[in-house]
Amino acid sequence: MKVLIVHAHPEPRSFCAAMKDMAVAELRARGDTVEVSDLYAMHFDPVARGEDFRGRENPDYLVYAMEQRHGWQARTLAPDILAEVEKLQWCDFLLLSFPMFWGGVPAIMKGWFDRVLLSGPFYGGKRFYDRGGLSGRRAMLAMTLGARPHMLEDERSVHGALDTALRPVQRMTLAYVGFAVLPPFVAWHVPYVTDEARRAILDDYRARLRGLDALAPLRFPRLDEFDDRLNPLAGG
Amino acid sequence: MKVLIVHAHPEPRSFCAAMKDMAVAELRARGDTVEVSDLYAMHFDPVARGEDFRGRENPDYLVYAMEQRHGWQARTLAPDILAEVEKLQWCDFLLLSFPMFWGGVPAIMKGWFDRVLLSGPFYGGKRFYDRGGLSGRRAMLAMTLGARPHMLEDERSVHGALDTALRPVQRMTLAYVGFAVLPPFVAWHVPYVTDEARRAILDDYRARLRGLDALAPLRFPRLDEFDDRLNPLAGG
Repeated sequence: MKVLIVHAHPEPRSFCAAMKDMAVAELRARGDTVEVSDLYAMHFDPVARGEDFRGRENPDYLVYAMEQRHGWQARTLAPDILAEVEKLQWCDFLLLSFPMFWGGVPAIMKGWFDRVLLSGPFYGGKRFYDRGGLSGRRAMLAMTLGARPHMLEDERSVHGALDTALRPVQRMTLAYVGFAVLPPFVAWHVPYVTDEARRAILDDYRARLRGLDALAPLRFPRLDEFDDRLNPLAGG
Repeated sequence: MKVLIVHAHPEPRSFCAAMKDMAVAELRARGDTVEVSDLYAMHFDPVARGEDFRGRENPDYLVYAMEQRHGWQARTLAPDILAEVEKLQWCDFLLLSFPMFWGGVPAIMKGWFDRVLLSGPFYGGKRFYDRGGLSGRRAMLAMTLGARPHMLEDERSVHGALDTALRPVQRMTLAYVGFAVLPPFVAWHVPYVTDEARRAILDDYRARLRGLDALAPLRFPRLDEFDDRLNPLAGG
């Protein structure tokens, strides 16, 4: 596999970074090629703005998605965006490594979505979900959080179900651009657990990585379940 | 009311900015005091990192939430964070004005959550949801998006229900720190509609702002519905 790990944690010695390092070692040991975008180490700029395009289609009024399409065709995207786009097009497995902040990814990773997931090559018109520009590839979240499992177990839990919280990332982002999204790997209660428990999490994560090919992706919409106006078809 | 509008759009002449400007004018005309944090205009830095604290409790290993608590007590938070914290503590109504990017807020606003919603004054231990540090205040989203209503109407819709997509923001962020969250104001299909339709949206938004006091907040968990371990109580 060609694996892109996008990692976002402000502490280079965090447990989340240890998970990322273990994943790099494990995947390389089995023969995969692994690229890492360590967003903090790269000082990645997460703010989508007009300066992302050298030469705008419309210099007077910014419609970001339109400028993405134009910038992709005219090859005028900012170099830091283009470098990430090329890694994304190269990979066939995308691993997002992050601590959950406020029910989602840290801002520096949200900005990687905002700036790198280009309108044009990755989605546009009716090209989304199973018709998205990155279809045929797989993605997976590997996240750390402070909560215990029963706090995000189902809709009766204090924060509701984890898969619901992850809808914007897993469905409206990764699946939207075409990825088959594998079930997330979740390291629970990390700030509060013993070193022994952390070692057990790393063992579980290693086993998960070794068993990737046996995992069924999460179920998300297919466009043939909807009509031309994107209304659900009967029985859908 | 003391109103804080946090606005995040990369185009100063966008329809989203026009909504924000109308809200400022309308709220001031009725006698409210309004502060605006225009995150793009302020060049707000959305990346949570160790440099956010002048003098760390633990300079060798960053636990961001712990440093927030320490930085708040020791008054060593970065000035740009402290300025936003003070506006937040001052306000009794928080309005978040943004275009939906990837099922959530733009990265620059996500980073406002990550950096400004401090562990310590705003949450910590069992101080969250109705016991959060900002309880007694109200918040509301005012968002623009490209989709039509039937694409986010309910769980059968192509992107599922809008309120589900908004869970990380409305429940796991705003409600978590104590806000009573009013139903969102949503400007649909904005890039594709006529000027006349946009004027109608502004009229609807004005009416919404005039009727705020009649709106019931969304229903989110109360801690008395859960036991000490945060398991749901029977009947909850």
